[in-house]
Amino acid sequence: MNEPTAIPPPRLLDTIKGPADVKALAPAQLPVLAQEIRDELIAVTSRNGGHIGPNLGVVELTIALHRVFSTPEDQFVFDVAHQGYVHKLLTGRGGEFFRKLRQTGGASGFLYRPESPHDAFGAGHAGTALSAALGMATGRDLRGSHEHVVAICGDAAFTCGITLEALNNVVSSTKRLIVILNDNEWSIAKNVGAIARYLNRISTNPTYNKLHHNVEAFFTSFPTGAEMNRVYHKWKRETKDFFVESSLFEKFGLRYLGPVDGHNLDALVKNLEFAKHCDVPVLIHVLTKKGKGLEVALHSPEKFHGASPYDPATGENKKAAPGTPPNYQDVFGQALVRFARADQRIVGITGAMPSGTGLSHLAAALPGQFFDVGIAEEHAVLFAAGLATKGLKPVCAIYSTFLQRAYDQIIHDVALQNLPVTFCLDRAGLSANDGPTHHGLFDLSYLRCVPNATVMQPKDEDELVDMLHTSLQLGSPAFVRYPRGAGTGARLKDQPATLPVGHAEVLREGSNLMIWALGPMVQAALQLADRLKAEENLSVGVVNARFVKPLDRTLLLSHAACIPLLVTMEDHVVTGGFGSAVLEALHEADCPVTVERIGWPDKFVEHGSSVEILRAAYGLAPDDIYRRVLARWRNLRAEQVPADV
Amino acid sequence: MNEPTAIPPPRLLDTIKGPADVKALAPAQLPVLAQEIRDELIAVTSRNGGHIGPNLGVVELTIALHRVFSTPEDQFVFDVAHQGYVHKLLTGRGGEFFRKLRQTGGASGFLYRPESPHDAFGAGHAGTALSAALGMATGRDLRGSHEHVVAICGDAAFTCGITLEALNNVVSSTKRLIVILNDNEWSIAKNVGAIARYLNRISTNPTYNKLHHNVEAFFTSFPTGAEMNRVYHKWKRETKDFFVESSLFEKFGLRYLGPVDGHNLDALVKNLEFAKHCDVPVLIHVLTKKGKGLEVALHSPEKFHGASPYDPATGENKKAAPGTPPNYQDVFGQALVRFARADQRIVGITGAMPSGTGLSHLAAALPGQFFDVGIAEEHAVLFAAGLATKGLKPVCAIYSTFLQRAYDQIIHDVALQNLPVTFCLDRAGLSANDGPTHHGLFDLSYLRCVPNATVMQPKDEDELVDMLHTSLQLGSPAFVRYPRGAGTGARLKDQPATLPVGHAEVLREGSNLMIWALGPMVQAALQLADRLKAEENLSVGVVNARFVKPLDRTLLLSHAACIPLLVTMEDHVVTGGFGSAVLEALHEADCPVTVERIGWPDKFVEHGSSVEILRAAYGLAPDDIYRRVLARWRNLRAEQVPADV
Repeated sequence: MNEPTAIPPPRLLDTIKGPADVKALAPAQLPVLAQEIRDELIAVTSRNGGHIGPNLGVVELTIALHRVFSTPEDQFVFDVAHQGYVHKLLTGRGGEFFRKLRQTGGASGFLYRPESPHDAFGAGHAGTALSAALGMATGRDLRGSHEHVVAICGDAAFTCGITLEALNNVVSSTKRLIVILNDNEWSIAKNVGAIARYLNRISTNPTYNKLHHNVEAFFTSFPTGAEMNRVYHKWKRETKDFFVESSLFEKFGLRYLGPVDGHNLDALVKNLEFAKHCDVPVLIHVLTKKGKGLEVALHSPEKFHGASPYDPATGENKKAAPGTPPNYQDVFGQALVRFARADQRIVGITGAMPSGTGLSHLAAALPGQFFDVGIAEEHAVLFAAGLATKGLKPVCAIYSTFLQRAYDQIIHDVALQNLPVTFCLDRAGLSANDGPTHHGLFDLSYLRCVPNATVMQPKDEDELVDMLHTSLQLGSPAFVRYPRGAGTGARLKDQPATLPVGHAEVLREGSNLMIWALGPMVQAALQLADRLKAEENLSVGVVNARFVKPLDRTLLLSHAACIPLLVTMEDHVVTGGFGSAVLEALHEADCPVTVERIGWPDKFVEHGSSVEILRAAYGLAPDDIYRRVLARWRNLRAEQVPADV
Repeated sequence: MNEPTAIPPPRLLDTIKGPADVKALAPAQLPVLAQEIRDELIAVTSRNGGHIGPNLGVVELTIALHRVFSTPEDQFVFDVAHQGYVHKLLTGRGGEFFRKLRQTGGASGFLYRPESPHDAFGAGHAGTALSAALGMATGRDLRGSHEHVVAICGDAAFTCGITLEALNNVVSSTKRLIVILNDNEWSIAKNVGAIARYLNRISTNPTYNKLHHNVEAFFTSFPTGAEMNRVYHKWKRETKDFFVESSLFEKFGLRYLGPVDGHNLDALVKNLEFAKHCDVPVLIHVLTKKGKGLEVALHSPEKFHGASPYDPATGENKKAAPGTPPNYQDVFGQALVRFARADQRIVGITGAMPSGTGLSHLAAALPGQFFDVGIAEEHAVLFAAGLATKGLKPVCAIYSTFLQRAYDQIIHDVALQNLPVTFCLDRAGLSANDGPTHHGLFDLSYLRCVPNATVMQPKDEDELVDMLHTSLQLGSPAFVRYPRGAGTGARLKDQPATLPVGHAEVLREGSNLMIWALGPMVQAALQLADRLKAEENLSVGVVNARFVKPLDRTLLLSHAACIPLLVTMEDHVVTGGFGSAVLEALHEADCPVTVERIGWPDKFVEHGSSVEILRAAYGLAPDDIYRRVLARWRNLRAEQVPADV
């Protein structure tokens, strides 16, 4: 007889279809659920990549939130919202949908309103939760309803100006708001600045911790929140400074509770119950461990903040295929070290993203020339402007999408004063797994209109080094954009070239069509040209545009004078982008040649498994582009050459 | 014999050619100088308009700064920098140059690097000083020089996220920075939020004030700063909490001094001397009276923040010429009151500018539907997004140039989530007397690329009401831009019209040229059409474009099909603006008609006496446009019709 096959015991997690099921569990089942969630998080993210560290840290906190509050009536606003995986698993988004996390058709890596009514407010950029929650709480007060609004903010959110602006407005806006300060001492990198130091002082102060235990003991004897509130007032009268009267947050009019052990479900539930009945805004300071439950993540919190697929046992990332070229960010970071070594005036500035931007190379090699200002893009750029007035050559390495945060500083402080600040915009184009909050598709439109700006994009990683080198000699604001991920494998020259500003590079001459391409589209253009030659015997030229501003008008007009169809290709929305710069230049010169502009449509692009899949979804796959260009060419010929009758 | 004519005694002010002359005065002469400065400020601003209130408040403070520090070696960074008039008078920019304040060829109303080496950092938007000064101080440390950097910030700067981001970074950036908190309890309107309340508590606390007097008495007995520093440490050891250990600013690692009477020169000089010798960042809390020395300004601080020309005796503004139409801002504000009365879901949000935006009408009529969040544009927009998720209909009234501050919130929070927030952008176009920090010339370029956005501009104030009405019904993000100042005098309809979104309005048909004009350019287009008819017998049509996004493609293409020359006119930079939207639409439809785009060039435009003077300086006077359009027309005809030989 065969031995019976071992049937795995059913998981609690699989029985959770919504928050009501979380509430129905017995307290003793909760640690089991927590462990199952951790297993699921690790299983999925080790395969798909994702924000594993932050989510492992909030397992108990998220369970406690769903024990105490009832979404979607009550509303949670997760700051950055990359720590919302647990929330997704508890609100009917587990199973196959979660297993396709960050893939086409699967769960978004962030909270996302279209995905679920339990996602009250989406995000992807840091520091928005308190401000949005304040709006929601005020809206609730105005319409006279009574639901709870809970903002769950990491400690890093408090380095963002937007959070601090909101903090200043809490008292004048509402009397009912619950803020969870999820303090793990990390933003993406280790947290910086005075507030981080302050929180650390609180958390490690034995008096505070003793008080915390007293509160705990006290609460245990009273069952309901209303009762607890009465007790709180009594206690407060009797115990001076019990709730740390002079805390930073009390100066902003929030009642401060904590610190609370963020992995103690009992303590969390009790504090949340208490907060639920407060008649003033309240902040609960919760201490969590980023990566809790995954040994390798505890030891490398920055690496496991947002990780590529990894081996849960060793922590090693899935090896790139042999021969994969280096990432743009690393080529940039290493080049910057080389330049900064030779010229001490060169300094690098990041907003809490040393690894993602490649500035970690500079931090390691020349720490005195490296600044991490926290998630504070406005300050990063303005600080750079200040440095520039003293003769330094600051390089701000900020993702394209995050640079939107510093738009006013770019115009009002850097460009208007024509200060030599260099901006390196990684993630220009798609960040496929992350989705619309992380794609960098608008920068050319919003930078092209800024006077004194020089805007460029390299065709490969070697040209990126040239552009960085060129920018550092320019003496005025320079912007270099480049895509996420691996370069083309171009050989890096020993010495970088100084590029002539405003000059494009002709890669291939042609007489029927001329393609003006930007960045990674240069490779695509060469392939398109090959195919048009092979299949249609068309002579197609290819230009590496290099500079969007100033555009190479002389070359452009010389092409327009003898070539009937120009094609522009850019990894950017077509509205106001590179192709529009080409149109503007042609019309200013009264040269109305036909232009086919290839780029992203006027839509927000969702997340997906790969750039290729998303390009195909928007009619931008190589085949699509081939058909569009060919159709435009045939159309043009039909207009010009009357058909034989 | 004639009586001798009374010769006015020579003014001290006229002998001041630079900071050295300020230092050379005897202490007893300083109050005389202060009075002369006030007289000069009032004389000039009552004629030219300007930021009289803030400048009257900092007369003694600025004198004290120049007594203690030596610019341009030492550097002052004035926040917003509209309070720099006194600094200008003391740094060689008095006399005729100052008397032409905010006029063509005269002093800028802000600090401005090209104007003087004493202007270390320019500004115009609030909240930038601390961040820029931190960059400058860090740059100084890096290059190893020893000059002082002093940031002079109003209390309102501390409602700005950028200031708070910088505050969080002070401790990790430098050990030597002096921050003056110029506390007058006002931003532009009365200050709001927790920090304002906190400062007020400090200033009015008798214990603090007593301590302050003790310090004063103490300092008097020691002559030098170094000695004072020694004494400070002794005192601190002996007197617990002497310098208010638990103050908000000490949590951020700044030594707190104050409050200091900002009109007591002795006290100011002593505190500045002390700060000069501190080996940690220090903040001096200075209490000033906005408008001190001008009775009418003391009573109406908001009106006299940035005033139009006024009568110093009565405070009355120079009457507008009879028949001057109402300002756009007032028409907007009154319409909003009417709509908000009928629909309680409509709320108005301002960033400290109730009067400038016209929201003061709402504040007065429906205070429960009005929010002033302080100078905090990021929070204003995100707060609105939060309100919108609760079914409210928020209207953010923010000047075009200040909306740059909230660009990421517009994209990431409002547009991506397609929330129904209405943005009303006053000061779109030029703010002539203010200059480049206040012109609103970039908004179409930076908004046109944002998916889900509807972007429009009315031809007159009646259409502004229609557009506000239309926006409030739209259910998605809407942006309405309009110029500073008086409308056209259009009659306001009893009931607003709901405009069909994306439809332009044909005002006049034509067969030779068609002008597509936006906003105030519609009037200019009608006059241009008249003149082209009268002088050249050309049939010129005029379209009021109304919507930049979505553009009326159907109408545009119908014109392009039969009219050889299209002209676009916009009060905006041509790079990426309305004209570019027209080019894009034409090329997408493969319709390469000739387009002449009229708008501002790719430059920062300085301040000037009037919009007309500035337009003329950039080739945009009516005559210039006439010549350009006519030349383009003749050129086109020459190409099409071979000349008779």
